[in-house]
Amino acid sequence: MPGIEKLPIEETLEDSPQTRSLLGVFEEDTAAISNYCTQLYQAMHRIYDAQNELSAATHLTSRLLKEYDKQRFPLGGDDEVMSSTLQQFAKVIDELSSCHAVLSTQLADAMMFPITQFKERDLKEILTLKEVFQISSDDHDMAINRYSRLSKRRDNDKARAEAVEDVYTARKKQHQTMMHYFCSLNTLQYKKKTALLEPLLGYMQAQISFFKLGSENLTQQWEDFLGTIGASVQK
Amino acid sequence: MPGIEKLPIEETLEDSPQTRSLLGVFEEDTAAISNYCTQLYQAMHRIYDAQNELSAATHLTSRLLKEYDKQRFPLGGDDEVMSSTLQQFAKVIDELSSCHAVLSTQLADAMMFPITQFKERDLKEILTLKEVFQISSDDHDMAINRYSRLSKRRDNDKARAEAVEDVYTARKKQHQTMMHYFCSLNTLQYKKKTALLEPLLGYMQAQISFFKLGSENLTQQWEDFLGTIGASVQK
Repeated sequence: MPGIEKLPIEETLEDSPQTRSLLGVFEEDTAAISNYCTQLYQAMHRIYDAQNELSAATHLTSRLLKEYDKQRFPLGGDDEVMSSTLQQFAKVIDELSSCHAVLSTQLADAMMFPITQFKERDLKEILTLKEVFQISSDDHDMAINRYSRLSKRRDNDKARAEAVEDVYTARKKQHQTMMHYFCSLNTLQYKKKTALLEPLLGYMQAQISFFKLGSENLTQQWEDFLGTIGASVQK
Repeated sequence: MPGIEKLPIEETLEDSPQTRSLLGVFEEDTAAISNYCTQLYQAMHRIYDAQNELSAATHLTSRLLKEYDKQRFPLGGDDEVMSSTLQQFAKVIDELSSCHAVLSTQLADAMMFPITQFKERDLKEILTLKEVFQISSDDHDMAINRYSRLSKRRDNDKARAEAVEDVYTARKKQHQTMMHYFCSLNTLQYKKKTALLEPLLGYMQAQISFFKLGSENLTQQWEDFLGTIGASVQK
């Protein structure tokens, strides 16, 4: 994919102000992506929750209709036409609730799963690496500071050697964490499009399947059924 | 419609124990209908609320996608392919949210309206009439009581005439309210089937329209669109 910008990992050892400034731009971009994705995640979660609630409510309605026969109505409770009509309603509404359940599952797998993974894994990883990098950066600054103070006081060689060793270790650590952090920020630039498009494609495909399932299996069957009821109600 | 039982309004003046016992059966039946309808009302309200929430969440998602262009992404925010792809997603999801909105409206008119009317008007009216009848029945009992006590004490003619007048007025009132109450209970027997079937038919017809609208207008258009995206993502 052309046109994707990268943080130069080869510059992490030198760690120049230019590199830091470029890092700032990537961090700002990451924050914007993270913010936008979180909003999209919340909207999709609302869709998903509403879809689940709709499945559950449809299923409950069907179950209530099935239980009509078990109600104790002192008058006309043994009306067979009414009873069988409601059983048929229960059956088709149950089929509809199955379609809704399939849609819920598809939304879970193809929409919620990828966007949750991106939010909880990729974006969180960057936050963690940012923190780790910050800590190793602070450690490095402290090691440098200690070393500078030593030089002024002209202490013994052993302390100086230790301070040099500390600076070396801290710089090595900082270099490593910075490389990790840069890698992770670069990876996000590659992933960000997919992260938005994948759950949207999943959503659309789930909706298309739902409409197909609904219109192919159910509507003809339903219209026949509604015709039958129209006839039996007028009896 | 054959087989529908009726309370005999012509028996309300005599108000015999047989009539009262038959009234008890009708009251029990009414309570059972009321209980069942309330459960169905609640289940349908859950469907309706979930459908509204789904419309709103779908609309929000579409709006978020439309706002993608307004986000400030320091890196690659000017990617035109991505931007136009998300605008297309926004457009089809917006169309889907319109379908959902139509479904919500139809559910409101054809499902919630009739069942709410039945619950809030017909069933409540019976409760009110039952109360009114109870009060006038108690008044009648009190008038009879006063009259009986008078007879024993052999009071003056004026008081006796007043007591007779009271009994007459109370009995007339009781007779009227009982006729009203009986009428209302009889009407319920005629209405009860329609009260259950009408919102169910409304629900089914709304769902059928929804599937038709969705599958006719949207799915072909969507599949073309998803094909285009597949191509543009691979560019």
